[in-house]
Amino acid sequence: MKNFQFYAPTRVFFGKGEYVRTGEILAGYGYTKIMLHYGGGSVIKSGLLAKVKESLEKKGISYVEFGGAQPNPRLSHAKAGIDICRKEGVQLILAVGGGSTIDSAKMMASGTLADCDPWLFVTKERVPMAALPIATILTLAASGSETSSSAVISNDESGLKRGFNSDFNRPLFSILSPELTFTLPPYQTACGIVDILMHTLERYITVPNFFEPTDSMAEAILKSVIASGRVAMKEPENFEARATLMWAGSLSHIDLTGLGKEYFMISHQLEHEISGMFPHVAHGAGLAVVFPAWCRYVYQKNLPAFCRYANRVWDIPMDESNPEKNALAGIEATEKFFREIGMLLTLRECGIGEDAIEEMAEKCTFFGKRKLHSVVVCGKNEIMDIYKLCL
Amino acid sequence: MKNFQFYAPTRVFFGKGEYVRTGEILAGYGYTKIMLHYGGGSVIKSGLLAKVKESLEKKGISYVEFGGAQPNPRLSHAKAGIDICRKEGVQLILAVGGGSTIDSAKMMASGTLADCDPWLFVTKERVPMAALPIATILTLAASGSETSSSAVISNDESGLKRGFNSDFNRPLFSILSPELTFTLPPYQTACGIVDILMHTLERYITVPNFFEPTDSMAEAILKSVIASGRVAMKEPENFEARATLMWAGSLSHIDLTGLGKEYFMISHQLEHEISGMFPHVAHGAGLAVVFPAWCRYVYQKNLPAFCRYANRVWDIPMDESNPEKNALAGIEATEKFFREIGMLLTLRECGIGEDAIEEMAEKCTFFGKRKLHSVVVCGKNEIMDIYKLCL
Repeated sequence: MKNFQFYAPTRVFFGKGEYVRTGEILAGYGYTKIMLHYGGGSVIKSGLLAKVKESLEKKGISYVEFGGAQPNPRLSHAKAGIDICRKEGVQLILAVGGGSTIDSAKMMASGTLADCDPWLFVTKERVPMAALPIATILTLAASGSETSSSAVISNDESGLKRGFNSDFNRPLFSILSPELTFTLPPYQTACGIVDILMHTLERYITVPNFFEPTDSMAEAILKSVIASGRVAMKEPENFEARATLMWAGSLSHIDLTGLGKEYFMISHQLEHEISGMFPHVAHGAGLAVVFPAWCRYVYQKNLPAFCRYANRVWDIPMDESNPEKNALAGIEATEKFFREIGMLLTLRECGIGEDAIEEMAEKCTFFGKRKLHSVVVCGKNEIMDIYKLCL
Repeated sequence: MKNFQFYAPTRVFFGKGEYVRTGEILAGYGYTKIMLHYGGGSVIKSGLLAKVKESLEKKGISYVEFGGAQPNPRLSHAKAGIDICRKEGVQLILAVGGGSTIDSAKMMASGTLADCDPWLFVTKERVPMAALPIATILTLAASGSETSSSAVISNDESGLKRGFNSDFNRPLFSILSPELTFTLPPYQTACGIVDILMHTLERYITVPNFFEPTDSMAEAILKSVIASGRVAMKEPENFEARATLMWAGSLSHIDLTGLGKEYFMISHQLEHEISGMFPHVAHGAGLAVVFPAWCRYVYQKNLPAFCRYANRVWDIPMDESNPEKNALAGIEATEKFFREIGMLLTLRECGIGEDAIEEMAEKCTFFGKRKLHSVVVCGKNEIMDIYKLCL
């Protein structure tokens, strides 16, 4: 095992109706003026926003509203929010929504207290030295952003979509009420399931190194998500299934399933170029295309991990004489599950042709400036090979 | 599932040799004067203390030493430490040792900034409003105190041993280097294994309520600890086994394995009276006596949980027609494992006779002021019945 750090300071309030306590929780921390940040119409239509406002007003907490966060959150949107935070003297940003809304809030939180373009945090030319605190009310089990140090943001000008990690990105608290996900369209639920699985899988299947408590907890989470995912797709109002997906989503991205291991999140890097260039592809949908292709590209280089995955997660009996067969059976089971919950498995099905591949590979290597490490080292040529397997 | 809160803000530095970075880590936080708190001779003999001091001196961090923490930490010791912290203007208490050393540090941390007898925090007559930060370098995988909000303290005057929970008890950071446990006597390793298992088991087997991600992670941790425990008993310098025990110990008491469930830690309550009155019994050793007896007392009232435990943790095939047999097989497997690692299983083997039982039951009910809830409600009579099963 590798030495590691673990840090997950976000306080989680989990369960039915917890969001009606938003005002009380904020008052407990002493905040008096916040930004209420959200996306489109669903939090308004569902009545959630009205209930949150009522809870704030009850405790005398004033708020400035800032809606309009979009999937694949844009830098320009965050910049507009930064102006409001500064002008209004906002003390905390409360994001009500899914990963995109939360990630926008993270960018605003660091940007408000910075004297530079916040995109420099993304390019790593600058490091945030302070940030407004953020909090979340989650409406979509998927990104894990509600507890993680990660944010993903797209630059409107360059079209680049990039991750930005910082301890300042960790929410002060997150409110997780599973019933808020009952009304999600099935496709969004399915994309969320893939995203949650991938946050664990990308830590679990890496270069050959095992750390038993980490790996067995990863398997526990993967199996819980697969079983609950099946239930939630059939019974969208099944509370236990929705609760399992929501909590597994938060656990999958606080690194619990990667501690002691070496990992690179390569499918996430490959996917960012797909949804970055083709925003009609949801992040989870892109992952469902990329991950099986990457598996097929590398599995022979790490048979022990792929065999363990097949056996422990998919209950595929081990044929010791044929590890390749075992490994492939696990990959096939993954594809079958993705298909079962309604995912497309190829770029072509997503409306993306071979002509896009070279540009995606260019962007993914930061125009030749980086190689991706994960079981095998991938430069532009290897990345193009993987994208071709996605066709 | 029940609504829950999750909060685990301690930053963990895990891995070989991490303790040589102590000074660097403290300097990163900005501390310049700390208390170095430890127990008896083992941290001196092993050379650990000297290395920690060297690391502090390198970074110009001054320290006041306070040794002498003992198993079943005493209030009088903590009070002596509080005087030193106040007189010396200590900014942070660094505990180097196991649960007892850490728990003493927790009592000192709250006591230093309080204007009352810190025992009032234990009796819940007062609540700490502030505390010095604490940090730990762990030398024993057992209590989970290095990441938990718990402390257990014994009052020298009354002989009472009680728990004290507060978010102020959560260490700012903990340094976990598994090789520091290589030289533990086998009996202490074994007591630690039992304590770690029990922190998970007491959350896992409760009243009949399941929450899949929590329960399956509990099973992953239990299985990891049992397998690694066996290895560590035979090969005390097996790094992976020691690392698994250490990390599982920290995970077992941050509540990850109890979230969404209703639990009461009744075996811990029953055990506190044993080691409280008979300090020659280590906490883990007392738990190995109490838990199987409690299981036999309640298992018929929660067969689904006991059957799941037998099947998922001990791989006992399910006989659907005879759940009692399944449940008992799981309890027997537990006893067999405890025996295998060298635990005693009865009070008499520990040198405690039937005559002690009434006094222990009296103390355990706070002299009639509380009942213990766990599958069945236990007053003094029920507690005496369980202690009798321990004979």
